[in-house]
Amino acid sequence: MKLIADNLRVTIPVIQKALKDKNPSSVISLVKECTQKGAWAIDVNTGPLGRMPEKGMQFFMDAVQSATHLPLVIDTSNPTAMEAGLGLSKGRAIINGFSLEPKKIEKILPLAKTYDADIVGFLLYPDSSVPKDANDRFEIALDLFEAAEAAGVAKERIIIDPVVPPLAWENGIVQAREVLTVIQTLQDLSGFPVRTIAGISNLATRARDKDKKRRITQSYLSMLAAAGLSYALIDILDDELVKMAKTADILVSEDLFSWGMLPE
Amino acid sequence: MKLIADNLRVTIPVIQKALKDKNPSSVISLVKECTQKGAWAIDVNTGPLGRMPEKGMQFFMDAVQSATHLPLVIDTSNPTAMEAGLGLSKGRAIINGFSLEPKKIEKILPLAKTYDADIVGFLLYPDSSVPKDANDRFEIALDLFEAAEAAGVAKERIIIDPVVPPLAWENGIVQAREVLTVIQTLQDLSGFPVRTIAGISNLATRARDKDKKRRITQSYLSMLAAAGLSYALIDILDDELVKMAKTADILVSEDLFSWGMLPE
Repeated sequence: MKLIADNLRVTIPVIQKALKDKNPSSVISLVKECTQKGAWAIDVNTGPLGRMPEKGMQFFMDAVQSATHLPLVIDTSNPTAMEAGLGLSKGRAIINGFSLEPKKIEKILPLAKTYDADIVGFLLYPDSSVPKDANDRFEIALDLFEAAEAAGVAKERIIIDPVVPPLAWENGIVQAREVLTVIQTLQDLSGFPVRTIAGISNLATRARDKDKKRRITQSYLSMLAAAGLSYALIDILDDELVKMAKTADILVSEDLFSWGMLPE
Repeated sequence: MKLIADNLRVTIPVIQKALKDKNPSSVISLVKECTQKGAWAIDVNTGPLGRMPEKGMQFFMDAVQSATHLPLVIDTSNPTAMEAGLGLSKGRAIINGFSLEPKKIEKILPLAKTYDADIVGFLLYPDSSVPKDANDRFEIALDLFEAAEAAGVAKERIIIDPVVPPLAWENGIVQAREVLTVIQTLQDLSGFPVRTIAGISNLATRARDKDKKRRITQSYLSMLAAAGLSYALIDILDDELVKMAKTADILVSEDLFSWGMLPE
């Protein structure tokens, strides 16, 4: 289970201000810290970038790439911004992402072919509504693979995001279990080694009690690891969460164990 | 996932001394504390009790039952001590346990019929050696069910213990995953709702670093909960571990969620 920092988001006031002022220093310091904390990749969540998608993306890509050589996950719903980001990427980039929404299939998915990139595929209906169970999610995964192949993108390039729900949703806790089931069964049902990604910060949004939030996030992360998750989008600056994630990953992936392997 | 306190063990010096001195006060205070911490049951690990199995068991049963009304898990390999314990039990008792070892099938298993009790069945070979993978464990489970039915004990009375290995064993980490697999698949493969039990204190025996031990135990416990474990034998006096266990259990078993459900 590789850890992708979800820390760089345009919705954070200091990052929003950096973009507005065209002052990269807070982006640079944040990305340096994420890199130093051991992220495998950085999610660059620029948002749609309004009326200046190319300039906005250039600002982020310049800042981020001056601070890190890690793979970047380009996270925007705007196809123009996405293409600008992919064009500016000096290393490996992952497209985050597409769904069955016709506009996404038409405008975002083909970029995976043009730029020879992996692409995240969300298990959502074309209208962005959430499927009700693991079976429905599996059907959507098959539709995503089919759409990819129709666009000339190998299905192996798709990284499936089953979309972790906030527990505060009406049936969020049931959906959170369906997400575990789909991650665990997708490989067997699909007949090839499907990679999966999940953003876990979503699970406990709006939790007021820090300890409760910490425990439920850590517990669910261990369950995701046991289900076989490939990539976890997490707050890489949360030291204890990262240590739990690395510990869980050792439990599910190593064949030889020593106490020295575990994070201090 | 119900939590069973594994705290009362004759191997603890203060408990050993209590038995020797026939002074129940430290047993009583320990059992009261375990009860107050929210255990669902108490494992009464008396050991084989040497040459005075009946008197030794009477000492423990009197002390424990004066301190709690919780169900008791009677944990001894000595059939005479086990029978004494079952005879003295005022409430629900669980026999812990039997295996394919001929002496256990002959002497311990029939007590489940005589005393109409649930009984733990260990997934070990007749010579007490450890099976190599989930498949071998499943075969042993079927043998345990068969032995039970031959002894007039319904297979539904068996609570399967897949035996959590210490990670320090040569291939302990691989075995720990096989244990998760067998817990998860046993119900489907057996065709009836098999209950399972696991002692998690074993996993991190001899760990020197407290933080590493805490993280790996908590992480594995969440994985056990996700696999569908029915009963976890744990250190009920470890507040944080108990809170993590309760949090994991809510994640896997509740259909409605509110932050108020989680332990403070």
